[in-house]
Amino acid sequence: MDTITIPTASDMHIHLRQGSLMSMVTPAVQEGGVSICYVMPNLQPPVSNTEMALAYKAELEKLAPKVTFLMSLYLNPSLTPEEIRKAAKAGVRGVKSYPRGVTTNSESGIESYDIYYPVFKAMEEEGMVLNLHGEIPSDAEKNVCVMNAEEKFLNHLKDIHLAFPKLKIILEHATTEAAVNMVKSLGETVGCTITVHHLQLVVDDWAGKCHNFCKPVAKYPSDRAALRNVIKEGHPRFFLGTDSAPHPSHKKEGPEACAGVFTTPLVLPYLATILESFGALDRLKGFACDFGREFYEVKNEKWVGQVTLTRESWTTPQSYSFGGAGIEVEQGDVVPFMAGKPLAWKISKIE
Amino acid sequence: MDTITIPTASDMHIHLRQGSLMSMVTPAVQEGGVSICYVMPNLQPPVSNTEMALAYKAELEKLAPKVTFLMSLYLNPSLTPEEIRKAAKAGVRGVKSYPRGVTTNSESGIESYDIYYPVFKAMEEEGMVLNLHGEIPSDAEKNVCVMNAEEKFLNHLKDIHLAFPKLKIILEHATTEAAVNMVKSLGETVGCTITVHHLQLVVDDWAGKCHNFCKPVAKYPSDRAALRNVIKEGHPRFFLGTDSAPHPSHKKEGPEACAGVFTTPLVLPYLATILESFGALDRLKGFACDFGREFYEVKNEKWVGQVTLTRESWTTPQSYSFGGAGIEVEQGDVVPFMAGKPLAWKISKIE
Repeated sequence: MDTITIPTASDMHIHLRQGSLMSMVTPAVQEGGVSICYVMPNLQPPVSNTEMALAYKAELEKLAPKVTFLMSLYLNPSLTPEEIRKAAKAGVRGVKSYPRGVTTNSESGIESYDIYYPVFKAMEEEGMVLNLHGEIPSDAEKNVCVMNAEEKFLNHLKDIHLAFPKLKIILEHATTEAAVNMVKSLGETVGCTITVHHLQLVVDDWAGKCHNFCKPVAKYPSDRAALRNVIKEGHPRFFLGTDSAPHPSHKKEGPEACAGVFTTPLVLPYLATILESFGALDRLKGFACDFGREFYEVKNEKWVGQVTLTRESWTTPQSYSFGGAGIEVEQGDVVPFMAGKPLAWKISKIE
Repeated sequence: MDTITIPTASDMHIHLRQGSLMSMVTPAVQEGGVSICYVMPNLQPPVSNTEMALAYKAELEKLAPKVTFLMSLYLNPSLTPEEIRKAAKAGVRGVKSYPRGVTTNSESGIESYDIYYPVFKAMEEEGMVLNLHGEIPSDAEKNVCVMNAEEKFLNHLKDIHLAFPKLKIILEHATTEAAVNMVKSLGETVGCTITVHHLQLVVDDWAGKCHNFCKPVAKYPSDRAALRNVIKEGHPRFFLGTDSAPHPSHKKEGPEACAGVFTTPLVLPYLATILESFGALDRLKGFACDFGREFYEVKNEKWVGQVTLTRESWTTPQSYSFGGAGIEVEQGDVVPFMAGKPLAWKISKIE
């Protein structure tokens, strides 16, 4: 098989940033073969109400008019059930929860879920989605560290699901066998996103390699195998959410690297290459196109096109430049995932 | 207690490098309060015979005339029982084994131990020490990665010990609770070195932080607790081997960081600060001065002095410069462990 034609993909977890970085990243969504994406709210300041979400959406639509942007709010103590109802009416699709301090711009994250139960109830009633960054904060006294922070989070997922069985919940960017098993064991309202890079990386790959460092960190080979296997079996509650999170290379290559892997411009070439490497190329369409749209019950997409991928050996670019057009505009370059490494598939047509 | 006076310390695992880096690092041994050290042979080319070891020792003695350098050979297929006997006569104290490819300059490392049994037998007879880098190579098929490579190595240690019960063996730079338990369970001929940095770091501390990245990697908080506890109990077969491994900062801060943490110039200030933080300051002398010398049965030290440490709040330097004196001499700077971070103890006198 040397060509594949599938619908344009759905990336249900993406960081589109702000300013000059946003201006580079947002048009790249379509280049990667994606026509719908679910946009993370961890800006500075966080997207915490309907107005901010709509203003951000308008900015993104100017940069990529054909792409459908599903917007989210940042879960925080000022969020009320009233604001949820207002946001739902305005088309905001969900609310993202970050544990405090575990990733980029998560200083406003939550510490306990109980205080949010009134908000969750409103979300359940309005059909909004709860997106969970599934890690608890590291705590040496309790033996919690980046390697087990996800596994130790999973009971929170279960508790919220049992309390709100009709609330759609997504465990975002799952990295462990334990997470796969937990999501499988729960009801139809619980979904799970999987990134491109967690299908490829294990802990060795980010040990000393800043461009592969992300949160949650990639874990054991057996964890990666579990992520691969759930895609191979075509489980419809596991779907693509890249967590593509660009940082300027000068914020990666230094004493303290920012967490995040950048995959947006090449999502489908990466995925076709990686899925083929473990015998799951036939699952590309379900995983990358269908299951996410179905879980979110997407209606009224602006545009759904067709992407043709062609088998071709080529090399991932070393970097993508951004900014530099004006004074005081941040500029730099972003090193993409697998920079300089071979890819087996290329997008030959999007229409 | 505001001053501590102890004998100059013994660092039973140190990388002193070559060229201009060696010229900076070697005099720093004494600055750190150390008067005897066991020198790693992973140079380019590796120190693989008696002549090379003696030539390297002569270079080191020129740079630090008062320090006693215990020399080692790099275990490799060309090493014969005859060479072992020759090395022992010349005062070489041991042989270091590296699994292939797991750390800096380990491309000549071993794959299986059986072929070395004649060499081990000669070492046992001559009273030489076998130093094991205790990790097996990563292998995704077998779920081996940097996080469990040490634990999965431990049966090799046990097998060699059972085959050569009188051979002195050291499990170098232990990082796991499993390793501590294994060494404790074996006989009096099995020792274990612990680094300064593994008493302080866990996996979170090297996630995206290149200057804390080393091999073996720091692991779970429970593993660090096991290392701390075996020092607190004053176990005489666990002693200081810093594995101080300087790399120029330009080889740390980039897409692929070299593995290694640099502690040589400040060994005793670091150790006093860290041991005090977990209530083990009273174990400083045993761990850093006595137990290593006893295990190696050191005789004829050139010099054993006295170090006085004084309680004083100060800050770890940001870097140490090396080279630059001539054309074609490598130059740069090395970022030390805990650069810019506070220390609670300072060396006030060495005599």
